[in-house]
Amino acid sequence: METVTLLLNCKDAKGIVLSVTEFVYKNGGNVLEIDQHIDNQEDVFFMRVKWSINDFLIAKDKIDECFQTLVADKFEMNWQIYHSDYVPNMAIFVTKLNHCLYDILGRWQSGEWEVNIPMIISNHLHLKPIADQFNIPFYHLPVTKENKVEAEAEQLALLKKYKVDFVVLARYMQILSSDFISHYDNRAINIHHSFLPAFPGAKPYHSAHKRGVKIIGATSHYITEHLDAGPIIEQEIARVNHNNTIQDLMRKGKDLEKLVLSRAIYNHLQRKVMVYNNKTIVFD
Amino acid sequence: METVTLLLNCKDAKGIVLSVTEFVYKNGGNVLEIDQHIDNQEDVFFMRVKWSINDFLIAKDKIDECFQTLVADKFEMNWQIYHSDYVPNMAIFVTKLNHCLYDILGRWQSGEWEVNIPMIISNHLHLKPIADQFNIPFYHLPVTKENKVEAEAEQLALLKKYKVDFVVLARYMQILSSDFISHYDNRAINIHHSFLPAFPGAKPYHSAHKRGVKIIGATSHYITEHLDAGPIIEQEIARVNHNNTIQDLMRKGKDLEKLVLSRAIYNHLQRKVMVYNNKTIVFD
Amino acid sequence: METVTLLLNCKDAKGIVLSVTEFVYKNGGNVLEIDQHIDNQEDVFFMRVKWSINDFLIAKDKIDECFQTLVADKFEMNWQIYHSDYVPNMAIFVTKLNHCLYDILGRWQSGEWEVNIPMIISNHLHLKPIADQFNIPFYHLPVTKENKVEAEAEQLALLKKYKVDFVVLARYMQILSSDFISHYDNRAINIHHSFLPAFPGAKPYHSAHKRGVKIIGATSHYITEHLDAGPIIEQEIARVNHNNTIQDLMRKGKDLEKLVLSRAIYNHLQRKVMVYNNKTIVFD
Amino acid sequence: METVTLLLNCKDAKGIVLSVTEFVYKNGGNVLEIDQHIDNQEDVFFMRVKWSINDFLIAKDKIDECFQTLVADKFEMNWQIYHSDYVPNMAIFVTKLNHCLYDILGRWQSGEWEVNIPMIISNHLHLKPIADQFNIPFYHLPVTKENKVEAEAEQLALLKKYKVDFVVLARYMQILSSDFISHYDNRAINIHHSFLPAFPGAKPYHSAHKRGVKIIGATSHYITEHLDAGPIIEQEIARVNHNNTIQDLMRKGKDLEKLVLSRAIYNHLQRKVMVYNNKTIVFD
Repeated sequence: METVTLLLNCKDAKGIVLSVTEFVYKNGGNVLEIDQHIDNQEDVFFMRVKWSINDFLIAKDKIDECFQTLVADKFEMNWQIYHSDYVPNMAIFVTKLNHCLYDILGRWQSGEWEVNIPMIISNHLHLKPIADQFNIPFYHLPVTKENKVEAEAEQLALLKKYKVDFVVLARYMQILSSDFISHYDNRAINIHHSFLPAFPGAKPYHSAHKRGVKIIGATSHYITEHLDAGPIIEQEIARVNHNNTIQDLMRKGKDLEKLVLSRAIYNHLQRKVMVYNNKTIVFD
Repeated sequence: METVTLLLNCKDAKGIVLSVTEFVYKNGGNVLEIDQHIDNQEDVFFMRVKWSINDFLIAKDKIDECFQTLVADKFEMNWQIYHSDYVPNMAIFVTKLNHCLYDILGRWQSGEWEVNIPMIISNHLHLKPIADQFNIPFYHLPVTKENKVEAEAEQLALLKKYKVDFVVLARYMQILSSDFISHYDNRAINIHHSFLPAFPGAKPYHSAHKRGVKIIGATSHYITEHLDAGPIIEQEIARVNHNNTIQDLMRKGKDLEKLVLSRAIYNHLQRKVMVYNNKTIVFD
Repeated sequence: METVTLLLNCKDAKGIVLSVTEFVYKNGGNVLEIDQHIDNQEDVFFMRVKWSINDFLIAKDKIDECFQTLVADKFEMNWQIYHSDYVPNMAIFVTKLNHCLYDILGRWQSGEWEVNIPMIISNHLHLKPIADQFNIPFYHLPVTKENKVEAEAEQLALLKKYKVDFVVLARYMQILSSDFISHYDNRAINIHHSFLPAFPGAKPYHSAHKRGVKIIGATSHYITEHLDAGPIIEQEIARVNHNNTIQDLMRKGKDLEKLVLSRAIYNHLQRKVMVYNNKTIVFD
Repeated sequence: METVTLLLNCKDAKGIVLSVTEFVYKNGGNVLEIDQHIDNQEDVFFMRVKWSINDFLIAKDKIDECFQTLVADKFEMNWQIYHSDYVPNMAIFVTKLNHCLYDILGRWQSGEWEVNIPMIISNHLHLKPIADQFNIPFYHLPVTKENKVEAEAEQLALLKKYKVDFVVLARYMQILSSDFISHYDNRAINIHHSFLPAFPGAKPYHSAHKRGVKIIGATSHYITEHLDAGPIIEQEIARVNHNNTIQDLMRKGKDLEKLVLSRAIYNHLQRKVMVYNNKTIVFD
């Protein structure tokens, strides 16, 4: 079955649901999933509709245009329509830690996700053998204070070359510049190894151990120019106790990181995530 | 603000959302919350809409009639409209354990819920002092094998007298007859002290301890004629370990029971629960 | 059965367990619970032993002295022995919010805890009716910038008068002075309505909502002179989503607060909590 | 640092801790971890001690003998001493599902566990490419009703040949015979895709979906001759809702299975698990 998924938001108004559902039904679409959210505080309306276009009266390549004219214009909507027959390209950035990379590649190779992984970029060579093992091109681009601008330019050139739709920072230990981020606004998913906003920045497990917390966490978020402060997509936690060393926290935390990052990627791929006001709406 | 909440389900068909939202908008309603669910397996459509009727063009006492004629008939809907200015009456059934009763009465007295508690019914006298402390009429109706029919008749008479809308079995240790249940179909909420379907029936903490589970749970559900097999509204769990005695399981379990039962009552009061095929849709 | 519970810590050394268990066994004690913890980083040893003294050869009022001489001196231990026949006195401090107070009083009245509650202190009159309902003396001591010193002196006088062993701050909305805290070092349990160290200080639910977290939490800790930075006893979390308003966060959070505070009180009463280096060891 | 880990259980008696700690300390051992558990109901004592033997006065190959004579005999202990310089051999049994296999191999290859994986056994060929990718011998042993006895004999021969210490059934879809199990008593770890004892046997996700549970789970346990009824090592859960299809449950469940199985393997490898009365003590 071929489907499209529409994500939209706009100022709340009477008749939005009506207009959108009219557009789908009157053109022969069969709604499979439909979700809305009204942010009464901000007075913003959000909607996600997924419908089968097997019998849709509007030609595939005209849907965008028709939706703009027939519906979106009236409500000044921000919107995007995603086609199920397009498989997105995901690039992975890594440094030395391999647990998230193994988890992502296992899921990818076993067909758990509808995604291509055209390449892996790393500032170190440590994980090249894993890329080789899974037959994925691996680009080693060391980053220093001095070459950061050039290194990011190379990264962006590779992303362009491989038509990368979104980026996953699977424990990539470099801070990306605002310029880089602007190219992948709400399309670069990071995993941070703490329960944000607790313990941002470096060595959160050390800080968690020192503070004596009873629960640790991991957070996936879209990166923004503010470190570890982007829109949160998913979080998960695990209990720890006084017996646990920093190494235990790291070990338990790795499992959280894998889980939380993969959930974020899944929801991103399913087009279930919308960003507004530095927060996410996740239609789970 | 005065509101109504519509719950409906019907065979899935094109145009349902359209018809419902038209009904609300064209009559001047302002949608505050809107949720749908499509059960693709059963081909059933579910919807919940809450809207402000402050400027609604249809008179309050005509909304039901108009909705039936203008929308429901066409799709053969099962539906119910609830008015925010009606405060429902909730009866509590208890036996000897007091933790759920304290929790419910504390929430009620502090105004956490929009609900009246016109009476408490018990087959024992143990908890009468608590009813007195909170100034709620307490009816002591002992139940034996011999008098069960009469006792339930008395209970039903009391429920009728106090116009009770729904019943909460807060660790009530009697099995209700099918006849009784038929009067409160999907309106009698039970708390079972296990993670159903594990450990149904008596002494689940003993069974959990014997089995050596690492997690215990509690389950709130609408009662049906099949013991501990009704539609599940909410479940929650807590970790246990080899150190925990049966008494520890009971102690931890009590906290789960309070939590899970109160969440079920809250969602029931918010009209967020629909029942279909012995399962619930909870628009959380 | 009459028991004592020994809590100790000291620099790690060979033979501590040996000495302690010798002390118990050779004097006819029957060990019921025994837990140790070795902090290899700090090189500190922690131990908790609970034994029956029904057939103990050392007289009840000589146990402390004997333990000091026979065991503690050798290892320069910090230690405390608690007798099961002493029921501790717990004072509750509240302001206007009642959920934790109801929860504590319900548990107390139903005999869930071995504790006396000789009085409730509040800077407002709002919760006096609940104190009356449960027949507990209620002291209304308003606190302003100007009278803070006098108010705390009055509080301390009351605590002394009632021989209060430990204090529970059940959403008490005043910051206590270092002087006050010094009288109840590791004996004043606070509940903070966030997942510390995230969102310390005022209005954490508002901050959590603004940040768009997917999980909220509550933290119980012993108060120290550093606001919301004392040793954490227990934490718990609940999932939230984009649908949840600040009010929803508060509602879900109240349930966490009740749960987390009561677990901390339980573990404190069971003498399962030790404090070291601004962290807790909880022998759960 | 070279260490040994002692696990023991015996009838509870005065002086056990004393004897064991004497044995360690008087021979120059340095205790690193020490845990006990007293099952007051069954009157059984359990203990785990890990100590450094770098300066131990007893020769490495005499420790067992000495412990038997000096300590174990007196209390009729069941015990086992494990040496840190022995790396155990773990065999993996799989059928067609690959998620647990990927997870295990990723952890193994990245050195997360101190374990050898000398071979993978499967009744199908599907996962051979993964074994090849990770350079592990793969044995394809189809099992039918007719050849079951011979197939298990071949499996046992392979396990013997590779000196396999314990077996992990990573979604292996065959029931092993009592005879096979007797060779790997408490040394064959299974992952079951439900929250046991709920939904034992085949297709638990289908059953969970039909029952409408709000939480699903996974359980790792040692296999016994009773299907899905062996001693539980670890369990974990995830929330589900009415939106989730059976496929969603499977997807979420796979992540639980990976997590729960790997935690069981970790604790088994750390010698933190003891079995008694069809239950486990896990010194976590």
